[in-house]
Amino acid sequence: MTTIPTEAVVPARVEDSAPELVAAAVDAAQGASAASASANDADRARWLEAVADALDDARDELVEIASRESHLPIPRLTGEVARTTGQLRLFAAVVRDGAYLEAIIDRARPEATPPQPDLRRILRPLGPVAVFSASNFPFAFSVAGGDTASALAVGCPVVVKGHSGHPELSVRTARLVAEALSRAGAPAGIFGLVLGREAGQALVQAPGIKAVGFTGSLSGGRALFDLASSRPEPIPFYGELGSINPVVITPAAALARTAELAAGLAGSFTLGVGQFCTKPGVVLVPAGSGFESALAAEASAHDGGPMLTARIAAAFPQGVQRLVAEGGAAVVLGEAAQEASDGSASPVVLAVDAARVVERPDVLLEECFGPATLLVRYRDEAERDAVLDAVGGSLTATLHAEAGEDVAALADRLAEHAGRVLFGGWPTGVAVTWSQHHGGPWPATTSALHTSVGATAVRRFQRPVTFQDAPQGVLPAALRDENPLGILRRVDGTLTRAAL
Amino acid sequence: MTTIPTEAVVPARVEDSAPELVAAAVDAAQGASAASASANDADRARWLEAVADALDDARDELVEIASRESHLPIPRLTGEVARTTGQLRLFAAVVRDGAYLEAIIDRARPEATPPQPDLRRILRPLGPVAVFSASNFPFAFSVAGGDTASALAVGCPVVVKGHSGHPELSVRTARLVAEALSRAGAPAGIFGLVLGREAGQALVQAPGIKAVGFTGSLSGGRALFDLASSRPEPIPFYGELGSINPVVITPAAALARTAELAAGLAGSFTLGVGQFCTKPGVVLVPAGSGFESALAAEASAHDGGPMLTARIAAAFPQGVQRLVAEGGAAVVLGEAAQEASDGSASPVVLAVDAARVVERPDVLLEECFGPATLLVRYRDEAERDAVLDAVGGSLTATLHAEAGEDVAALADRLAEHAGRVLFGGWPTGVAVTWSQHHGGPWPATTSALHTSVGATAVRRFQRPVTFQDAPQGVLPAALRDENPLGILRRVDGTLTRAAL
Repeated sequence: MTTIPTEAVVPARVEDSAPELVAAAVDAAQGASAASASANDADRARWLEAVADALDDARDELVEIASRESHLPIPRLTGEVARTTGQLRLFAAVVRDGAYLEAIIDRARPEATPPQPDLRRILRPLGPVAVFSASNFPFAFSVAGGDTASALAVGCPVVVKGHSGHPELSVRTARLVAEALSRAGAPAGIFGLVLGREAGQALVQAPGIKAVGFTGSLSGGRALFDLASSRPEPIPFYGELGSINPVVITPAAALARTAELAAGLAGSFTLGVGQFCTKPGVVLVPAGSGFESALAAEASAHDGGPMLTARIAAAFPQGVQRLVAEGGAAVVLGEAAQEASDGSASPVVLAVDAARVVERPDVLLEECFGPATLLVRYRDEAERDAVLDAVGGSLTATLHAEAGEDVAALADRLAEHAGRVLFGGWPTGVAVTWSQHHGGPWPATTSALHTSVGATAVRRFQRPVTFQDAPQGVLPAALRDENPLGILRRVDGTLTRAAL
Repeated sequence: MTTIPTEAVVPARVEDSAPELVAAAVDAAQGASAASASANDADRARWLEAVADALDDARDELVEIASRESHLPIPRLTGEVARTTGQLRLFAAVVRDGAYLEAIIDRARPEATPPQPDLRRILRPLGPVAVFSASNFPFAFSVAGGDTASALAVGCPVVVKGHSGHPELSVRTARLVAEALSRAGAPAGIFGLVLGREAGQALVQAPGIKAVGFTGSLSGGRALFDLASSRPEPIPFYGELGSINPVVITPAAALARTAELAAGLAGSFTLGVGQFCTKPGVVLVPAGSGFESALAAEASAHDGGPMLTARIAAAFPQGVQRLVAEGGAAVVLGEAAQEASDGSASPVVLAVDAARVVERPDVLLEECFGPATLLVRYRDEAERDAVLDAVGGSLTATLHAEAGEDVAALADRLAEHAGRVLFGGWPTGVAVTWSQHHGGPWPATTSALHTSVGATAVRRFQRPVTFQDAPQGVLPAALRDENPLGILRRVDGTLTRAAL
């Protein structure tokens, strides 16, 4: 194996990657593909843990750069590093568990008509993956975030396209990742970084790239999805594109807990200056419930703050203005047309009748990235359901009801439109666990089966291969008779850890 | 629930479906969506078995129609009905097993920082699925084939676009399916049929359709894939488009077993008049091994026969002619430019040097649907591997080696390019089992994770939903504390059937 120096695949400084550097990173990833795929699970788990350790060790330095570039507060960023390294370690656990290989064995049945061969199925890595990092999570959805971790976990090399909102952090993180992987014995070229919009487009079109993970805007994501789909060899594009995250408050809950719910919502929609893809953007409240004034009072106690980038800061007041001027929303709190010359934003609460939302979903249901939420007043269940159907696909949907209310039909409706349905609580904050899912019907994500958080995120980068009548020596360890990995397998239809 | 008469969603006779009939079938499927999704597993399993029973009961009638329309022999078609009904019953078993729901539970950890909510994940049906049936399997990949069975299994309504090669069979089968489902208590509108090319295009573009299963040609499949991807709301398109199915014979195997291998290959590439997507289209043989004359002798003992349709019969000699005239392949057996005026075809064996294949892959590696195979003479492993890499994605790859040969690296290369790797045997014949996989890298299939055969085919039509802090009464049965279905679940990271 030739050794590819880190310098060849991670830029030394912040500058858009020239086409030949993109090509070199893809070539390096392709060169690392076979060795990544054939590495054993214990080694791959160790690589992920080595990256996690390196990031934890460099935490203070990284947080300082991230804070300077993203304007996010130190405590939030410190927590995000912990979440990111915890995520890397979760994927190491997923790999060690072995069920992610989905080993299935059907032994030969020579007596069947026609005779049935010995068939053994496993999931294998797709090959090099391009990862587009996000502006709003400089760690957890960026260079060493969930997409990168899940791709490396299953044996796919990764080329990251760093976000322009935190390029210095991208370069520094990438260097740490590449060096940690190298020290841990991962194949040379398994990880690279490119910068710049054109580099990103080239990456999606590079024949050597076999899948894309993306977190970002609907417009940017759709454009890249179209590029990926229209390649001579189309590749899967797993995009998380944006989300309205509807919240429903029942009349009983509004009556019983207005102050508590207003306080919770105010904390959620202003968190991180409203720059979360799980921010509650539309909140359905019973008409005449007095929730508007309660929320205004609570939200006014929250400070605004600087936004991630100048572009985002400029777009926020424009988005609010559009909801008011074109959508006809009333301003409950805040200035509809804030001046964002200092790049910061303050909380905005808007309100509108349900009927109006159904009339102008194109304006009123457009995601407004920043600390704004739209209260939608509904008079009955029909209006409520019409708004939920108009919202369509979201990452999350949240229901606040009182104990004893029959919410089964409503919960079904929410589950139809969202990938995560919350009963109480608020959607900001995404626990990284085996069962987590961070996806939803279009336009929340481009792939309904997509998840960029949770143990099953790895499956985006795997494909099945079935071996027919293969000699033991040729089979992957997971499929051998003696089950050397001790993993759970389905054998002749039954789940078991037993050897054959 | 309104009852939708079978007549509304299954045409009474063979004619292209008018746009309003396509819309009606999609509407009916949407109308059945909620009830299909919420039906319990035992009921859905019964529906599939009811369809299987109805087809078995009508077997002789169906085989008669199929034979008349497809020109396939009665014994083959009789076996295919058994395979089709066995497939429906396998999916019933998959549903009863319950693991297909992928229940994952992470209990709340209030002590964690930040506190972690109770999270429970399950797979839910995507919604109405469009199924495009194939010419060459009038039962197993058609109206009641694997796509339909796997979609119905997980709770997705189905609208089939019947194939023009066997329209009368499509109508008759669809009526039996719709009636069996109705008698078994399935929701009205859960199954429909449309006919005609324009109806198919309308189906892929209908907003109510949430996924597509397709088996057919590369050109037709690519066009529909592009339609599905460019919708305002793109949907997954699971297409099986065609395959070269390379076979490698090592020098040692050629030396030891020429006659046996020639006989096996002759049987495989002529089976069903060569009209299988798993037909071995390219066979890599050691140069100078004498395999060509052995195969010619064996293949000349096989009769040809009528092809599926006049269009297919006309295309076959054109394809052969192109391999010879443009590709430079030598004719070892058969007539390069057969007259196909009677719609039949006879076995053709061609041969060419490896170097030529690498030079003109555009001509020599194009699928030639019919009873032809191309022997590729390789002089060394480098030539062999270059041809395999040029072939690219296939449904299958087959290796004939002698015991004791070190084939690990070669097996890896085959697994990189194919979804099923055979050690000995021939790729025609696809056992329907839990572990089977019928897919491969592009252009074999449009989705690397695609499979249209095997238990995991159901997953194409499911999406995850995670419930956060949900009351027991709202949760799907599979996620309730007491595990009422008794299924395997991952709880706090560990696989178990225990109640919480």
